[in-house]
Amino acid sequence: MTTSFPMNAGDGLYSYSKNSHLQKEIIDGAKEMVRDAIIRKLDIKTILSSSNTLRITELGCSVGPNTFSSMQHIVEALKDKYLYQDQVIKSTNNIPEFQIFFNDHVTNDFNALFRSLPIDRSYYAFGAPGSFHDRLFPSRSIHFAHSASAIHWLSKIPKDLLDKKSPAWNKGLIHYVGASNIEVVNAYVAQFEKDMEMFFKARAEEIVPGGMMVFISPFSCYIRLMGFFGSSLMDLVNEGKLDESLVDSFNLPMYFPSPQDMTKVVEKNGCFSIEMMELRYTKSKLVDEVDAKTLMINLRASLEGLLINHFGSKIAEEACARTILKSEEISAWMKVNYEKPSIIFAALKRK
Amino acid sequence: MTTSFPMNAGDGLYSYSKNSHLQKEIIDGAKEMVRDAIIRKLDIKTILSSSNTLRITELGCSVGPNTFSSMQHIVEALKDKYLYQDQVIKSTNNIPEFQIFFNDHVTNDFNALFRSLPIDRSYYAFGAPGSFHDRLFPSRSIHFAHSASAIHWLSKIPKDLLDKKSPAWNKGLIHYVGASNIEVVNAYVAQFEKDMEMFFKARAEEIVPGGMMVFISPFSCYIRLMGFFGSSLMDLVNEGKLDESLVDSFNLPMYFPSPQDMTKVVEKNGCFSIEMMELRYTKSKLVDEVDAKTLMINLRASLEGLLINHFGSKIAEEACARTILKSEEISAWMKVNYEKPSIIFAALKRK
Repeated sequence: MTTSFPMNAGDGLYSYSKNSHLQKEIIDGAKEMVRDAIIRKLDIKTILSSSNTLRITELGCSVGPNTFSSMQHIVEALKDKYLYQDQVIKSTNNIPEFQIFFNDHVTNDFNALFRSLPIDRSYYAFGAPGSFHDRLFPSRSIHFAHSASAIHWLSKIPKDLLDKKSPAWNKGLIHYVGASNIEVVNAYVAQFEKDMEMFFKARAEEIVPGGMMVFISPFSCYIRLMGFFGSSLMDLVNEGKLDESLVDSFNLPMYFPSPQDMTKVVEKNGCFSIEMMELRYTKSKLVDEVDAKTLMINLRASLEGLLINHFGSKIAEEACARTILKSEEISAWMKVNYEKPSIIFAALKRK
Repeated sequence: MTTSFPMNAGDGLYSYSKNSHLQKEIIDGAKEMVRDAIIRKLDIKTILSSSNTLRITELGCSVGPNTFSSMQHIVEALKDKYLYQDQVIKSTNNIPEFQIFFNDHVTNDFNALFRSLPIDRSYYAFGAPGSFHDRLFPSRSIHFAHSASAIHWLSKIPKDLLDKKSPAWNKGLIHYVGASNIEVVNAYVAQFEKDMEMFFKARAEEIVPGGMMVFISPFSCYIRLMGFFGSSLMDLVNEGKLDESLVDSFNLPMYFPSPQDMTKVVEKNGCFSIEMMELRYTKSKLVDEVDAKTLMINLRASLEGLLINHFGSKIAEEACARTILKSEEISAWMKVNYEKPSIIFAALKRK
């Protein structure tokens, strides 16, 4: 069993559904690349040879609305690819049907997801509950897999980070960002590689030959923003409001892979070819307008559940509020360091 | 859009998940018949000719645990059928995989369903949100459909029942049970037939040729028990605690089909052959032990949401409590009338 870290549920003030602009920006920035991968790289003739239904999955869908926008975009690109392909299998009587599997942990708010499914959708919608580090689907049943802002979530915290006797003990920090101890970084990398080994083993079974898998993962400044939550917690320690050992025993279960990290895990698995792999700067209106506050409120929707779970709701609330108060400081830091949000885009094909 | 009437959510005192013994008994009573239909009537060679995955759906699954027990039973029967068939397609390297789609309205508590999925299940589990009166699945994608205690739920209340000027106005009653006015019964039958027309049209598209659909539907004394809730409401009217017009404007959206009703709608659709159709008395321990109280608490888990929605929670609570107080009267009535719970079992095959 892997541990799950769901986004804030429902549709309240700090819910993920109302505060996922950051994830939206990541997805919007990658939309043209997803379309490009489908139009240029997908052999739709091969994957439609055994079925008239195209089966798509969103791995780590959370509660919407971003996932609906991504899926609609993919369906449209696949339809266009189908319509403009050569005439051999095309037949107006035989336009493919689309089946979409929304995957996330069983602790995800699927009720909210289902209740907000677009009425005018042109696909059959399903929930696929479970960890994407395990098997989710029957063998060779998926034609296209999409995962946005999800694979950086680790299945668990590397246990050495919490062990005082380990060289990887991560004292005073909540992440590898800002850690001067290379053993901390190594422990995160090792967990990421272990998780991805499970992930690719499962997907290699599930995706049809010629089927495609696309990743969009945040990189660069998104990572560094995590550090500001850690410094808010340390402020509370310094003011005597929080016991330092509680910070020592907390680590964010996220590793943000580089293109090199991604290439390594794909090649180790051996079942997928890398069709595209890019580090791309998003045209971030959020950052251009120096709206670090929005960014931090967005991150809060992702992190608050984790913080509450470990520190209790009072400390979590205060740490979040203090981090958001640092928005100006964060904006200034981003400007000085010319930090722009960037994403990794990868398109793989099942051999 | 059809209206949905979900069972009581969660796992509290009057939740469906804790109070579905009645439904469990109906399912248990039919288990051997389901197995018999699979072993004797299903041509597994044909349905496995184009896919090594058997796709099963539970139509109207609610929140469990009954649905998990039914699905496990069906998977086991299908495995046995596969293992004892002739050797032509059998291969030990090629045991089929099972994919199960749990269907119910989007208002169903899928979160509870997913969180209670059996850990040791031998199938891939999915949620299929939506009304089974509409399309749910791609064309020819389902091999086996199962529906227990679900098709008696109408998509809406026949509007003539609420119209004072209509001959079908159902004054003072909440169901067709006990109605002396034949127009009331006819309005219910007409709605059932309209719903089943939609239902069978959708299933005829979705189920593969040779695929099977099995229904288990409550009949006989279960229907009459509904009347006791109506009489509790009328008691409240007679005591001046409830306005009679509120009772007049409430009708239970359920029609319990007879084998003749089922045969008629199947034949009208024309795409399915009737392989088995039986009215079967269940060996009801509940009724043998004259435990009418348990029966009524079970019905409460199904009906309470409807009552609250129309009458408000105070009246709903009182009507339910009063009905349960009538358990002895109900037991006596059942004994005098030799009323035994019975079910309709039907197994159909897609032509």
